[in-house]
Amino acid sequence: MNIRFPILFAALAACMPAHAAEVPYPTGYRAWTHVKSMVIQAGHPLHASFGGIHHLYANAKAMQGYQTGRFPDGSVIIFDLLEANTTDNAITEGARKVVGVMHRDARQYAATGGWGFEGFAAGDPRQRVAGENAKAACFECHAPQKNTDYVFSTWRE
Amino acid sequence: MNIRFPILFAALAACMPAHAAEVPYPTGYRAWTHVKSMVIQAGHPLHASFGGIHHLYANAKAMQGYQTGRFPDGSVIIFDLLEANTTDNAITEGARKVVGVMHRDARQYAATGGWGFEGFAAGDPRQRVAGENAKAACFECHAPQKNTDYVFSTWRE
Repeated sequence: MNIRFPILFAALAACMPAHAAEVPYPTGYRAWTHVKSMVIQAGHPLHASFGGIHHLYANAKAMQGYQTGRFPDGSVIIFDLLEANTTDNAITEGARKVVGVMHRDARQYAATGGWGFEGFAAGDPRQRVAGENAKAACFECHAPQKNTDYVFSTWRE
Repeated sequence: MNIRFPILFAALAACMPAHAAEVPYPTGYRAWTHVKSMVIQAGHPLHASFGGIHHLYANAKAMQGYQTGRFPDGSVIIFDLLEANTTDNAITEGARKVVGVMHRDARQYAATGGWGFEGFAAGDPRQRVAGENAKAACFECHAPQKNTDYVFSTWRE
């Protein structure tokens, strides 16, 4: 067996930059389990960032996390934020504002609680809004939730 | 082969009352695909019946229906209505008010557009709110939607 290739890969890995891998775009998340929803209106402290109607979605591993309190690697939670349009005493969903992602990988994202954080503006996989700023832009607000693995939401039956 | 049993079953079927079968409780629907959501507030014409926040869910066959415009037998669509509590400029989900069900079976529910309609108060499988009144209580409002197989909602990406 030729062992040169494993050695080459190890050498390449040692040369890679120290920052965490990009959080993958969560393809297919609209078919994942809907956890809960909320509307944030003008006047709410988070309105500037999160005004609108948002839905939380969880993949199968994240559903395990909601049930057990510990989210295994591979858990992905989506914060899907849409405009909320109020007309004639009804609030309907409008354009997508951002797809927020928490992607669990305890080793890769050790600096941010074991979660990779990213946002995709308008749900566009090419428009990353957190990137290298994820720690300040996302994790700092989640840090106090350490007892629930840094997750704010809970499963609503 | 003993043919008495098929004959017996046919005889029993002929004795059954003419009304449609009960719509089954949609076990497991919270893991189905979330289609869209809406909030109906005080002052809206449907507030008395549907005030709160509702989510539409579809099983796999109903998802085919949303994509193709024709819902095959076995399609089930859920209208999951929760109280909407407004506090400090945020609307959060409260107690479940009713689980509305449309269950496709063109033959069984021919009198109501091929859909069985039912509502389960508070999501309780034992508390049926439509029953024999489904035609007046549900189908009459859906009847104008004939071009979309009597379905109001559309898939929201």
